[in-house]
Amino acid sequence: MIDFRSDTFTRPTPGMLQAMLQAETGDDVFGEDPSINKLEAMMADYFGKEAALYCPSGTMSNQIGIKVHTLPGDEVVCSNLAHVYIYEGGGIATNSYAQVQAIEGDRGMITAARIVAAINPDDVHKPRTSLVCLENTSNRGGGCCYDWEEVLRIQEVCRQHKLALHLDGARLFNAIVATGQDPKDYGQVFDSISVCLNKGMGCPMGSVLLGSAAFIKEARRIRKRLGGGLRQAGYMAATGIYAMENNIQRLEEDHQHAKQIAQALLEKTFIGHMLPVETNILIFEVTGGEWTPKKLTDHFRKEGILVMAISPTQVRMVVHLDITPDMVAKTCQVIAETM
Amino acid sequence: MIDFRSDTFTRPTPGMLQAMLQAETGDDVFGEDPSINKLEAMMADYFGKEAALYCPSGTMSNQIGIKVHTLPGDEVVCSNLAHVYIYEGGGIATNSYAQVQAIEGDRGMITAARIVAAINPDDVHKPRTSLVCLENTSNRGGGCCYDWEEVLRIQEVCRQHKLALHLDGARLFNAIVATGQDPKDYGQVFDSISVCLNKGMGCPMGSVLLGSAAFIKEARRIRKRLGGGLRQAGYMAATGIYAMENNIQRLEEDHQHAKQIAQALLEKTFIGHMLPVETNILIFEVTGGEWTPKKLTDHFRKEGILVMAISPTQVRMVVHLDITPDMVAKTCQVIAETM
Amino acid sequence: MIDFRSDTFTRPTPGMLQAMLQAETGDDVFGEDPSINKLEAMMADYFGKEAALYCPSGTMSNQIGIKVHTLPGDEVVCSNLAHVYIYEGGGIATNSYAQVQAIEGDRGMITAARIVAAINPDDVHKPRTSLVCLENTSNRGGGCCYDWEEVLRIQEVCRQHKLALHLDGARLFNAIVATGQDPKDYGQVFDSISVCLNKGMGCPMGSVLLGSAAFIKEARRIRKRLGGGLRQAGYMAATGIYAMENNIQRLEEDHQHAKQIAQALLEKTFIGHMLPVETNILIFEVTGGEWTPKKLTDHFRKEGILVMAISPTQVRMVVHLDITPDMVAKTCQVIAETM
Amino acid sequence: MIDFRSDTFTRPTPGMLQAMLQAETGDDVFGEDPSINKLEAMMADYFGKEAALYCPSGTMSNQIGIKVHTLPGDEVVCSNLAHVYIYEGGGIATNSYAQVQAIEGDRGMITAARIVAAINPDDVHKPRTSLVCLENTSNRGGGCCYDWEEVLRIQEVCRQHKLALHLDGARLFNAIVATGQDPKDYGQVFDSISVCLNKGMGCPMGSVLLGSAAFIKEARRIRKRLGGGLRQAGYMAATGIYAMENNIQRLEEDHQHAKQIAQALLEKTFIGHMLPVETNILIFEVTGGEWTPKKLTDHFRKEGILVMAISPTQVRMVVHLDITPDMVAKTCQVIAETM
Repeated sequence: MIDFRSDTFTRPTPGMLQAMLQAETGDDVFGEDPSINKLEAMMADYFGKEAALYCPSGTMSNQIGIKVHTLPGDEVVCSNLAHVYIYEGGGIATNSYAQVQAIEGDRGMITAARIVAAINPDDVHKPRTSLVCLENTSNRGGGCCYDWEEVLRIQEVCRQHKLALHLDGARLFNAIVATGQDPKDYGQVFDSISVCLNKGMGCPMGSVLLGSAAFIKEARRIRKRLGGGLRQAGYMAATGIYAMENNIQRLEEDHQHAKQIAQALLEKTFIGHMLPVETNILIFEVTGGEWTPKKLTDHFRKEGILVMAISPTQVRMVVHLDITPDMVAKTCQVIAETM
Repeated sequence: MIDFRSDTFTRPTPGMLQAMLQAETGDDVFGEDPSINKLEAMMADYFGKEAALYCPSGTMSNQIGIKVHTLPGDEVVCSNLAHVYIYEGGGIATNSYAQVQAIEGDRGMITAARIVAAINPDDVHKPRTSLVCLENTSNRGGGCCYDWEEVLRIQEVCRQHKLALHLDGARLFNAIVATGQDPKDYGQVFDSISVCLNKGMGCPMGSVLLGSAAFIKEARRIRKRLGGGLRQAGYMAATGIYAMENNIQRLEEDHQHAKQIAQALLEKTFIGHMLPVETNILIFEVTGGEWTPKKLTDHFRKEGILVMAISPTQVRMVVHLDITPDMVAKTCQVIAETM
Repeated sequence: MIDFRSDTFTRPTPGMLQAMLQAETGDDVFGEDPSINKLEAMMADYFGKEAALYCPSGTMSNQIGIKVHTLPGDEVVCSNLAHVYIYEGGGIATNSYAQVQAIEGDRGMITAARIVAAINPDDVHKPRTSLVCLENTSNRGGGCCYDWEEVLRIQEVCRQHKLALHLDGARLFNAIVATGQDPKDYGQVFDSISVCLNKGMGCPMGSVLLGSAAFIKEARRIRKRLGGGLRQAGYMAATGIYAMENNIQRLEEDHQHAKQIAQALLEKTFIGHMLPVETNILIFEVTGGEWTPKKLTDHFRKEGILVMAISPTQVRMVVHLDITPDMVAKTCQVIAETM
Repeated sequence: MIDFRSDTFTRPTPGMLQAMLQAETGDDVFGEDPSINKLEAMMADYFGKEAALYCPSGTMSNQIGIKVHTLPGDEVVCSNLAHVYIYEGGGIATNSYAQVQAIEGDRGMITAARIVAAINPDDVHKPRTSLVCLENTSNRGGGCCYDWEEVLRIQEVCRQHKLALHLDGARLFNAIVATGQDPKDYGQVFDSISVCLNKGMGCPMGSVLLGSAAFIKEARRIRKRLGGGLRQAGYMAATGIYAMENNIQRLEEDHQHAKQIAQALLEKTFIGHMLPVETNILIFEVTGGEWTPKKLTDHFRKEGILVMAISPTQVRMVVHLDITPDMVAKTCQVIAETM
């Protein structure tokens, strides 16, 4: 099967498996796992941040980041399509006891102007606005990338209103490769960043949270009580080191593949509006004739291709490192032959 | 001063003060306050509910109601203008550890169709939708009243999806008087109702939460740990009994006064869009010429009239039982003379 | 009935009722209730604290105090008999998301030495110790009063370990009258104090939380989201002003009454160990012969006297301002005649 | 170095590494990781439970278990030495919003009689008792094992009072091997069990939570919002399968080693009270002469042996599968030569 359901389905390459097998490990709760320590240092350096923390999942690194930045009863401003709001099980309420003000944006990307309008005055009736979360690339926005000028305007709003600024960078490497932005720019603008090693990076699991030394010290405490303190997880962290050294630039290939597939799709009349393909995600409407997302998904499955219906009108396809050029060619051919 | 800032500013009438003074009281934490017991029974009977609980404030009775209906990590659906979402200090997150999905509506009134669309599927990524909250009348909607047919459609949605349905009835008596709906209809449709004795009813403080016997038993436990268990609060509850007996029908007078003032305002060119005046609240834009909400507020203050700017473009006036016909006449005259 | 079950059962005296009736009031959520403002200022002055906050109940003022001093995941150190731990519905967990380390003491009074031993090291496995709560007088300790030297040693421990120090002063006026300690000493030693106006002070309801200006500003925010923001509660606050002016010194009379009753009880062979009677509470074991707490309670009830069995072996009696000298004499006589 | 600090320091054996490398994996968030599915089924079968859930850590599986069994404001009864109370960062308060009543026991093992006494009556002042947690073996109790008759009495108490019963089985395999108890007996008595694959089982990380199908469905939801939903974690789960097949019976060897070392220690006059050595943990006082835990730890370190001072008077040593017979012999020799 050619699996476009998500880039969370990638499996380690032989080189990565080798790195896993040879990992030096220790008890990370005691700070003694050399692979985790190395990965954390490498990540902090890559983004120009003081410190980093290895976490079991992107959900956990987001949830910890939000917790450190907020007090109970605070309000978090993010897009109404943000992963932290719609796909993390209501964790902002349960883990941070904070409320979300979910605002509209363009494909999940929000603007400085809308953020300013969402900030509450100092009034006991209103939650205290304390944190803005961005997501880059925006998953539900079809992998789109923030305009850097807007990011800088948002940073300025946060500075003026003393709000923390967190980045859900589950697919930040895709954005970095697609836009050519220096990773250290992200480190400078955002108070904290979570990045995933799964997804495009191809690791079996894991995420890293980045921030100041004081931020990460507090994050380590929260990770423990959430149950995210691992032991010899260096086997997993070693795959992250491998990915940092081998799998970033190759994301460009995934982006090319996504564009190829987009082209094939757009020739079909039953494909409606498609979100601009900026990285490795395609989200498009299936509207023409008798095709529905459900029908198309079933049809593709029979042809050995897995895609995902994400709403009654939309289908999502995600390209990743297990998708070879041959698979892309095969997929384009199946699309071309679909009536 | 003629105070239109809020109906929370009312002071007890001499009759109500007399009722307060003569109240029989006891320790309500032990269930021994006769006035509180009588008020709770009277309220339960009025709405046709099994049981009732006296609470210090409408915020507390809402917060308790939401807590009893939800589990941590659940999602509450309400209007993006709902008091429980925007004016209760983020309490849904801190007291119920639940997330809000705030949806758009007409003046704070949401529809069955939008609610259906907001219900999450059974998926570990998504908070479990468990509660719908309506607010009637809708404060930020200018005191508007729900269409009863829509309420019934919402009830049906909740029944089908096993959602609880809570009513923030801070100004429910206004809605009842304005629409003529039988209070027992509310008791039948809603799993729980909170009503305020302050506001139009004219009591110094207090709110009552209504529900099934089992619901109120649990509510009583939660009230205690929030610090809402009072002692000889029968002095306050007695004003509620007085209000139930004397102050409901007279709300009609407030509604007439509001319409009179609305008419005076609408003759002025500097008054922009005004929300339909269905009960005792006026919300209107101040746009014409050089008038701004701030300027108008200042001008009125000099004339002995207090109103409230609630946004950069809007002013709110609330009529209540301390506003006499003379005051309304005076206010209309001041409006007429404002250029 | 002569009601010794609790001093929460007191009813206002005619003078207090008069004060209630004549209270000047306003909307306290807007800071416009003159009686509440006056009571808060009076209380702050009495204890030498910067600011004060009127709350509906002692449970709420304790819960708010604890919330302001702690972060989620912190640990609160208090006696295993502390009201905040055993009688506030688990509120420290639900309102502050904090853990309790409940330590043993002498009649609910804990020592500096035990507190030091309870402080956790800085370790991600352990909750961060951030607050010590004392209770004076100690309810479950039979109304006993802390030795001031020990209080100073506890203050020093808190200073050294950067812990906040909160006083549950539900019956602090009893301690002040019994020991002659200057109330301003309490204000100086404790970061925050909650005192009750109900209980010995005789008000229908209400409590006041004291602290620094910054502390009270934050407390006001938390009070709102717990639902403790009231409106014209000045009617209740006015009884507090009356109590501050009239009911403090007379507590001495309650203490004398308690000692009189103690003497009568100790002459009976069926009365076992009695906790030293330092203020207005008597706690004694009922052990001799065929008497049990249940039986004694029933017997007294038949004689028109209400007392409370608080454990399978213990009975509690609480003296308060509704207990007249005649009632004390009658009670002593009933005791004397009990075989 | 011979590392006796904790059995969390074990590293995978070559066979286990091979199993890791060859693991079949998939995205577990979608339920598609064959290794995780296999491990969960294997574990459920081993304990005779309906279902199981793979978690990143024992802390997370405990925290999830406690969360599913409780409502906010409930009270959990456990030993005052329980890992869930003293070593999980206050998680019961932050994750479950529940209070702990920590009771005394024998080396962390509590009795049915003490549990009965700790159950709160149905009273709004008191948290609702809903869960009892046991820990077997008891870590802070020196790896001691519950008497099965007492466990059955505790089960009966829970049944009568409708309390859930959770087992923190971080070292349950040690207890099973040491006592010969049938693992299915545990499955029958406890509503939920968490077991660690790290520690004596030798896996790099991971824990499994066991319970009914409905319990595990809810647990899966909570795992997601805590950030414990992993992707291709089958690499780690495969080590758990390997451990289940190869590492249980060999724990007997660790227990023998522990007893050997105990014997060597008990011959030294500077060793004070030692907790009975029932499994793989030694906890003993260092009191004689000029030896202190700190000094002994430093001395051993110079000899290539790592042990841990766990209090000002106590040292802990933990035997595990990285401790060979030669290391034990070397250790006994070093002990013998220590003056």
